[in-house]
Amino acid sequence: MKLLLTSALLAFSLAYAQTPADTAGWTKATTTHRLSEFPKIHTDGRLWFQFKAPDAKLVQLRIGATNKTYDMQKDKDGAWSIIIPPPGPGFQYYWFIVDGLIVMDPGSYTYYSNGIKTAVEAQAPGEDYYLTRNVPHGDIRQHLFYSKVTQSFRRMFIYTPPDYDTNLKTRYPVLYLQHGAGEDEAEWTSAGRAHLILDNLIAEKKAVPMIIVMNNGFASRPGETAASGPGVARNFSAFEQMLIQDVIPDIDAKFRTIPDRDHRAMAGLSMGGMQTFQIGLTHLDVFSHLGMFSGTPQGASKPLDDILAQGVALNKRLHVFWFGAGTTEERFINRQRELRGMFEKAGIKALYFESEGTAHEFQTWRRCLNQFAPLLFKTGR
Amino acid sequence: MKLLLTSALLAFSLAYAQTPADTAGWTKATTTHRLSEFPKIHTDGRLWFQFKAPDAKLVQLRIGATNKTYDMQKDKDGAWSIIIPPPGPGFQYYWFIVDGLIVMDPGSYTYYSNGIKTAVEAQAPGEDYYLTRNVPHGDIRQHLFYSKVTQSFRRMFIYTPPDYDTNLKTRYPVLYLQHGAGEDEAEWTSAGRAHLILDNLIAEKKAVPMIIVMNNGFASRPGETAASGPGVARNFSAFEQMLIQDVIPDIDAKFRTIPDRDHRAMAGLSMGGMQTFQIGLTHLDVFSHLGMFSGTPQGASKPLDDILAQGVALNKRLHVFWFGAGTTEERFINRQRELRGMFEKAGIKALYFESEGTAHEFQTWRRCLNQFAPLLFKTGR
Repeated sequence: MKLLLTSALLAFSLAYAQTPADTAGWTKATTTHRLSEFPKIHTDGRLWFQFKAPDAKLVQLRIGATNKTYDMQKDKDGAWSIIIPPPGPGFQYYWFIVDGLIVMDPGSYTYYSNGIKTAVEAQAPGEDYYLTRNVPHGDIRQHLFYSKVTQSFRRMFIYTPPDYDTNLKTRYPVLYLQHGAGEDEAEWTSAGRAHLILDNLIAEKKAVPMIIVMNNGFASRPGETAASGPGVARNFSAFEQMLIQDVIPDIDAKFRTIPDRDHRAMAGLSMGGMQTFQIGLTHLDVFSHLGMFSGTPQGASKPLDDILAQGVALNKRLHVFWFGAGTTEERFINRQRELRGMFEKAGIKALYFESEGTAHEFQTWRRCLNQFAPLLFKTGR
Repeated sequence: MKLLLTSALLAFSLAYAQTPADTAGWTKATTTHRLSEFPKIHTDGRLWFQFKAPDAKLVQLRIGATNKTYDMQKDKDGAWSIIIPPPGPGFQYYWFIVDGLIVMDPGSYTYYSNGIKTAVEAQAPGEDYYLTRNVPHGDIRQHLFYSKVTQSFRRMFIYTPPDYDTNLKTRYPVLYLQHGAGEDEAEWTSAGRAHLILDNLIAEKKAVPMIIVMNNGFASRPGETAASGPGVARNFSAFEQMLIQDVIPDIDAKFRTIPDRDHRAMAGLSMGGMQTFQIGLTHLDVFSHLGMFSGTPQGASKPLDDILAQGVALNKRLHVFWFGAGTTEERFINRQRELRGMFEKAGIKALYFESEGTAHEFQTWRRCLNQFAPLLFKTGR
């Protein structure tokens, strides 16, 4: 993706036009499906949306982590249009509001984020680590397994690195990677592009080849009220038991893993980060690398009290203890800085990453994974 | 799935109610996502839809291959509801029409069928061959490859049978399976459940373990106008070249295949069936089993003229030559019967399947795959 000189300010002055002054420089966004022409993206990063609703009185576009809202303009054929300045880097959820009714864009692919959402892949100048490059590519597998804890078949997504199917004598370390309260097991690859991030890191020899296992973070035992999304009580007990007793043994049996704690990591975004903190720290016999992406315990918690009490003793038990958050997601970045103070005072070694100018959104978590993955499995081998 | 005694007639008499007489017997449909309560399905097969649109004057439900349309009723909270009789067996696309505007149901998962569509999995009494049963399960892989023909990275979906990753000395035959003009490479598994159909057939020893390779059927060379959907000229030349020169060598290099014509099949639905007929019959050095699901050449075509001229000689070159269509998709079933007459007159052996009471829809194609797959790779070994 080319970094162009056209500034965001210039782009902003061109915004709000119903149709562009000229049609040069516009192509379909990568998130626009084959039977649609819109949304389009300009080489300067502007986005052009269109939605046909001849009888509507007002159609608005709402986009991004800050829910920025634009009034669209209707042409004589009943198509509502808007050209907007670059909405922020990378992956942006959006929808239309048609006379007050929220409607997903029929022109874009859908993703799972607190329900079905449309999204557009916006420019991110200087960030090409998640693009499909001419490098060897791993596979993403949809894998069914039976959980004795939930007493049901469940689906996980598994990334196997390039050459996994040809280097049949090689065994690999495993990163267990979790989504947030809004997503499901597909989103780390579909919205997060975890597979492409790893393909690129491995090709550049920045990260060691590894397997990534992505499960649905909602689990309940038969008879328990099923947790389903934001606002659910943060009871990870069934998920924890399932991960340790069902998932890891299934993966170690069916994939060529190195089945020990030195070669097992856990990370997650938002709720998945909270799960990583809680489950990872209470199972240091299972995991040795932990990554919390915009997901730290917000109040007191048992593992937090425990590790603060352990202090420097914890350092011998963790190869990587890593925290990342976006600088514009106030609650999360503030908590991360607060924890950093507590950990430093207690002598606990950790690493901290601040994603400049991003919020509680996938661009933050792509950057986190791109920073975190290269640190994994480089000690304790 | 239980076959209940409640008749469709009784169900019909209960339809059009805004809310059910009692709430017993209703559960979320399997296609309803975790943050939604609707659509619901009753044990007797009725479906209950709900959509919140307080300011709308009229909300309608449109569902199924025949586009049956129902007016919904608004309650005091602005939620529109409808309970409908069983809409037909299995997988049904549907949407809402809100004062004339087509809106997908935010409560259901989306699929790709001439754009993004919501769908509901309805009952299909007596059909359990595509359900998730307690049998060994294969994986579905998303696999990126570089096509020299299109000069781009492309994605395919690949089903590997149970034990593929543990029986490391076993090699497998391959079925190349194509979607129709409305779909993409994901739909044979997401809407079609091809992986579950094969898991069940393999568990019952009705089908031999095989790999299934599912590609996007739209391909164009750089500079060519990209074909994108229904109504496109039926020029399969770039796809044909890509399949033969890029896809098959990639699969034979990276998967444990038996790389000869006796162990290679091709099949497809609708446009994919037409591609199978054209590409398969002109590459009998590559394929020996061909399946056309609701997809036969509608007029004269080169391979059709050629095989009619060959007559009985063709029988030695094809292990399986198979046609299937639904009895209520008139154009396709009529053409299939017409071809049958022509083939029988020419002495060409083929097999014909008629899916009772289904149209140009996935339930027809699930049944086709369930009938076709057991016939594969049982001769010529």
